[in-house]
Amino acid sequence: MAGSGQTSTAFDLAAAQMALEAQPFSRLVQARITEFAEGTATLEIDIRQELLQQHGFVHGGVLSYAADNTLTFAAATALGPAIVTGGFSIQYVRPALGRTLRARAEVVQAGRRQAVCRCELTMLDGEGAESVCAVAQGTAMTLNGSARGADEG
Amino acid sequence: MAGSGQTSTAFDLAAAQMALEAQPFSRLVQARITEFAEGTATLEIDIRQELLQQHGFVHGGVLSYAADNTLTFAAATALGPAIVTGGFSIQYVRPALGRTLRARAEVVQAGRRQAVCRCELTMLDGEGAESVCAVAQGTAMTLNGSARGADEG
Amino acid sequence: MAGSGQTSTAFDLAAAQMALEAQPFSRLVQARITEFAEGTATLEIDIRQELLQQHGFVHGGVLSYAADNTLTFAAATALGPAIVTGGFSIQYVRPALGRTLRARAEVVQAGRRQAVCRCELTMLDGEGAESVCAVAQGTAMTLNGSARGADEG
Amino acid sequence: MAGSGQTSTAFDLAAAQMALEAQPFSRLVQARITEFAEGTATLEIDIRQELLQQHGFVHGGVLSYAADNTLTFAAATALGPAIVTGGFSIQYVRPALGRTLRARAEVVQAGRRQAVCRCELTMLDGEGAESVCAVAQGTAMTLNGSARGADEG
Repeated sequence: MAGSGQTSTAFDLAAAQMALEAQPFSRLVQARITEFAEGTATLEIDIRQELLQQHGFVHGGVLSYAADNTLTFAAATALGPAIVTGGFSIQYVRPALGRTLRARAEVVQAGRRQAVCRCELTMLDGEGAESVCAVAQGTAMTLNGSARGADEG
Repeated sequence: MAGSGQTSTAFDLAAAQMALEAQPFSRLVQARITEFAEGTATLEIDIRQELLQQHGFVHGGVLSYAADNTLTFAAATALGPAIVTGGFSIQYVRPALGRTLRARAEVVQAGRRQAVCRCELTMLDGEGAESVCAVAQGTAMTLNGSARGADEG
Repeated sequence: MAGSGQTSTAFDLAAAQMALEAQPFSRLVQARITEFAEGTATLEIDIRQELLQQHGFVHGGVLSYAADNTLTFAAATALGPAIVTGGFSIQYVRPALGRTLRARAEVVQAGRRQAVCRCELTMLDGEGAESVCAVAQGTAMTLNGSARGADEG
Repeated sequence: MAGSGQTSTAFDLAAAQMALEAQPFSRLVQARITEFAEGTATLEIDIRQELLQQHGFVHGGVLSYAADNTLTFAAATALGPAIVTGGFSIQYVRPALGRTLRARAEVVQAGRRQAVCRCELTMLDGEGAESVCAVAQGTAMTLNGSARGADEG
């Protein structure tokens, strides 16, 4: 039922990078995907002036973009690429300051139609020290009634 | 920076527009604030190619940016400008297609330190017809024991 | 078990009351369903000592039970009875004090497999005055590819 | 400022058990607290007929009660006992079946006024095998403007 001849292992890091590149908004934000395998995905964004809010911190909208996208990529490691994000919840734990934003998500549980994922967002400073700035959890679902993978790529 | 001698009644639509303009990420997204009064705030974003994902829909990260910011502006009508977003939850209800994204948030309840707000996100087509694409709810809090005290008198 | 030969139009208020009665935990809490039609469901719980926390307010767990169940019943008006709750988010807006807890949920959008719903929780005092104590939003889904098909014809 | 002469270490497992016992709803559910220290709290509930829904699984309202309470107890290890739950988000990942429900929460970050916590809910079968049935995240806040610990026990 899932995938017509393609195995899910064909949706690997290189394919995930192409999928990310195919998202105009991800190019605008300049996100990169650095990990994509076995229930885990990592997105990174180097922080520049354009991504800040009025007090010099990374804008919450950048963090929520990263949570949304990383949760969905993690889900795709289990469900394949033909999925949509169902929704998510994010809690900010401290102002986001630093050189690079890293969002790392993992699948908590994946069924045939849906995956539940969690995500931790950290800021890295110039020395690579990492501090949590937000946590998120959310869901992604296979496209409505379509066989997984069949209609993409 | 926020709340230096200003009373919260001075934080009106014009001031909210300046606050939005002072957010580099909001300028990158090209959001505008069209309503800001008495527990309600509305943000609008005209949709262009850069804001889409790979299937031609508005990227979830744009919707979550809009939810985050509109919830916080709505909270600011009650709490004043010196606040931070605590977090929020968003559920996508259908793919976002259309000319303009509109996010409208309202305060459910505001205390001295925190406000709980809800937000509805809709897409407007060329004729102005509006359809819901996501709903969100979240919180914002006065800054940690500091600035807010100054203008609470 | 659910939907054995029944059409979804037969799932009315009387059937919803039977479904609620069939939940042992809802009998323990003593919840009643007072509205179930066209995208809306209302649950009520008369407050007694057993439902409180240590400060005399209604326990958050009672509020979250009510949100969970009312969101799911509202979804059932659109999806039929063979569904599961996906998850939800709840924000408490003030301590819950009063004679009766009322949870009222409505469907924001329902597709073939999933419904997104919002819920408002209020406390009623002895005179019937109502004040919001929490807001919630969540999702419910048809059972995994199975029972639902039977009564969708 | 915090606590009038009491140290936060005085709010230990024994005190947490007393706080739980002081909640009538927790006695109705028959929850017990088995861990309470250094940013972590664990609640357990032995499953009996009264806690189920109509299909024989643990009712979502029991899981959400456990998430609510465990998140708040975890926060109390950092903030002290004088706190309120702000809200939380819960995702169900599979039907909850088993002998005992275990909810384990940990503090992600705690400031002076608020703590953000995550919670994992598992079911234990007769052999002690554990499987995740839900994940949650939420916040708790110190009581509005009151000094921590000063007004309790």
